[in-house]
Formats: sequence, C-alpha cells, structure tokens
Amino acid sequence: MELAETRRRRADRARQVADLLRREVLHGSFGDGHLPLEAALAREFGTSRNTIREALDLLRDEGLIERCPGVGTTVVAEKYPHGLHRLLGLAETLSEHGEVTNEVRAMGLIQPPAAVRARLDLPPGESVVYVERLRRLNGLPLSLDLTYLVRDMGEPLFDADLEHNDVFVLLERIAGQPLGMAELTIEAVNADAHTAAVLDAPRGAALLMVERLAHLSHGRPVDLEFIRFRGDRLTMRGHLRRATE
Amino acid sequence: MELAETRRRRADRARQVADLLRREVLHGSFGDGHLPLEAALAREFGTSRNTIREALDLLRDEGLIERCPGVGTTVVAEKYPHGLHRLLGLAETLSEHGEVTNEVRAMGLIQPPAAVRARLDLPPGESVVYVERLRRLNGLPLSLDLTYLVRDMGEPLFDADLEHNDVFVLLERIAGQPLGMAELTIEAVNADAHTAAVLDAPRGAALLMVERLAHLSHGRPVDLEFIRFRGDRLTMRGHLRRATE
Repeated sequence: MELAETRRRRADRARQVADLLRREVLHGSFGDGHLPLEAALAREFGTSRNTIREALDLLRDEGLIERCPGVGTTVVAEKYPHGLHRLLGLAETLSEHGEVTNEVRAMGLIQPPAAVRARLDLPPGESVVYVERLRRLNGLPLSLDLTYLVRDMGEPLFDADLEHNDVFVLLERIAGQPLGMAELTIEAVNADAHTAAVLDAPRGAALLMVERLAHLSHGRPVDLEFIRFRGDRLTMRGHLRRATE
Repeated sequence: MELAETRRRRADRARQVADLLRREVLHGSFGDGHLPLEAALAREFGTSRNTIREALDLLRDEGLIERCPGVGTTVVAEKYPHGLHRLLGLAETLSEHGEVTNEVRAMGLIQPPAAVRARLDLPPGESVVYVERLRRLNGLPLSLDLTYLVRDMGEPLFDADLEHNDVFVLLERIAGQPLGMAELTIEAVNADAHTAAVLDAPRGAALLMVERLAHLSHGRPVDLEFIRFRGDRLTMRGHLRRATE
C-alpha cells in the first residue's frame, strides 16, 4: 500500500492494516490460530514492520490476539456472529457455535413504567412480567438481557425452562403462532462498572446494545428487550439491499 | 417496579431505569430537553430517589445528559438514526438531521493486500482506489471511513465532489446502474488513542464499527468499507422478520 507508506502517519496506516487483519482473525483465515511473521505481514501489506507492530498492538488491545516472544502472534478471542437477516433468538443463531445457557437473575410481575406500557400498547394498571438474564455461550458471559413481556405471554414462563431455551421459542409455543416483526435499535456503549462486573469484562469495555420490540405475527407487541452484548464476543451480520422492498 | 425495589441490588435497578430513560432521551420524549425531577421519576419508576440518581449518573457517564444543581437534568447529546432497513449512504439516511460533509484524509491508487483483493474478487496485480474520509454531521465528527474501490469505479472519483456526496450516489452515477446488495458486519469496539483523537472522542470511547461490502445490482463487488461511528452520536435502526424471506 504505497500510498499509505509515503504520505500518511503511521497510526493511520496501522489502523488500515488492523482493519484487514481483524477481518481475517474473525473469519478464522488463520487456520491454526497463528498469524504470519511480522516480516511476511510487512511484505503482504507493503508497509514497514513498525506499522505492522502497531497494527498488531491495536488488535491485542481489543483482546483478539496475543503476542509472545519466541511464539509469535496467536488468535485468542472468538467472536460469534449473530444473524441480522431474520429475527432470531440467541441459542438459535449460535447453535453451531455451542450451548447457550441462561441464568435468571430476576423474574416477577411488576407495574410497568409509562415508557414500557406505551411500547407494549397496554392500558394503565396492567402488569407485565420482567425477566433479567445473564446469557452464556459455552459457559462464558455473552449478554445481559432485560425483558418485559405482556402478562398473558409472560406468566407461563414462570414454569418454563428458561435456563435452556430462548424466550422467542417459548413465546411461540405459548401463543401457538410464530412471532412476526421486531423493531431494532443497535448502539455501542461503554460498560459501566457494575455491568462490566456482571459480564466479566473490563470497565468501559465496548458493548453492543440492542433494544428490540418483538410482535406476534398479527402485529401485537409482546416482548420488549434491552440487551447488552460483550463487544469482544459478538458481531452482528446481515445483508442490506439498495432497492426499497 | 416493586420487584426491583425489594429484592435486587441498587445497581441492577439503576440499569433497568437507565435503559428506559435512555430510550426516551434518544427519541426526544422530553420535548424541551428537561427531564422530570428526581422525585417525579422515583414515583414513575416506583423506586427510590437514590436509584434514580444512580440511573441518571449512568446516562451522564454516557454523555447523554447533564445534571446541574438548581437547573436539574437536561439532555445534551443527540444520537442520529442510521437506517438499517435498506442500503443507504450517510447523507441519504441523515438528510433530515443536517448536512454531512466529508474531509478526504487520503486518496490514491494502491496495490491491494490479498484480503482486499479476495473480497473485491480481483486478479493479482490489479490496483484499487483507497479513500479515507472523516465524515461530519453539522460540523461534528461522526465517522471515520476507510474505503477500497475497484479501479474502474474508483478512478472517476478523483474528479468528483467527495466532500459533499456519498460514495454510493457517485458510484451509481459512474456505473449507470443502482447498487444491489451489501454484506454487513456490525461490532462494538473501544477507540484507540489515535482514532479517538481523529473523531474528537475520549480514548476508549465505544465505537460502532461496520464492515460493508457493496455490490452492483448484477452482483459484482465494487466497494469495501470499514466504518467507525462514534457510539455517542449514532444508532442503527431497522426491522427484522421472524419468517425466512
């Protein structure tokens, strides 16, 4: 990348290299988990070894790789892809990557604040079921989910196996019909101290925050969720089309 | 939320309240930018004023609100929604929120590394056009975009007005056909020191990182982008359907 080498700051070149290496790390392009030597990477990217070192430092700071003298550079983190092509529960979308288990941290009937009531289109005075779960993939914390469910759909969950099932699957069983559409908002936020502790992540760690309102197929909103995914463990992947559908 | 009040740690209750308030802040529910008094929020959420204070602290730490003695709590940040329902350029999706301007930090013809060549489906030896832009909305830094374009589509951009146009719109003009589909990966990452400085954000700030490969309508990949959005300035919003399309 001659352009990069001759006219730009090393930090800019390092970011450019890091972005390309990140993709290869995340997609398992380094089959045995070992990255090529710095000299080989410098040739591949047409840049200096100092730039390569700085790029590898960026990926190490993200927790994706480790660098050991004598051993070289190895991939240490795996990020799992959450499908963005359709509405999927966590265990559904990660089924080929391992077992999702859910620790129920809180569950009960509550009087919803106005913001929840409005989203779920409920009359004043109507209760909702609140469920808070820490979700793990193969035993490692992946997300913290805060869920509000309309009462008739949520109450049967008190007797359900929430530890081993996605709420989506249970809701469809209870409703006797599939879910339809969900509205989705995705943000990146820094983990506060307490959330970081729950997710076993560093304070300030970047989290992928998702707010999702799921409807039954005929349109009734039933499930409002606030989900914090560990940014170093999950990506969202999908397709967009240019033409309006 | 009686459940929350009686059986759980205050930090858990504060997070729960903060998530609901965050949504109202982001959607402009507080029309004049002033949040209700703590006592009113405590009543609304059925929780203690200490919990409300802790929830507001979380939103202040995210840079969404400010709290001044005597003045109360005010909204200070605006997050802009990037449409996820179809493939859109930044100026297109934010047209109602203000003017997007692009500062071209680097642009030139380069020999692509293998990772880029493979994604753009190019033979060895073929050059690509690299463009690096800092993108602002109403003068404030919003994203840093690293873009690789196939040569025949990228070279005409040397004479184009990149400062005031989305690359998508320019590419469609050059190709004489609309773009088709794009593959998309969304991650949350912490900003490294140099990227933070470029985006005028705190070091470690959560960024929404998007990798996007856009194709022409007949399927040829033409545009590979690595985009870092400031997490405190942008959300992505869309819909998902449960049924497979």
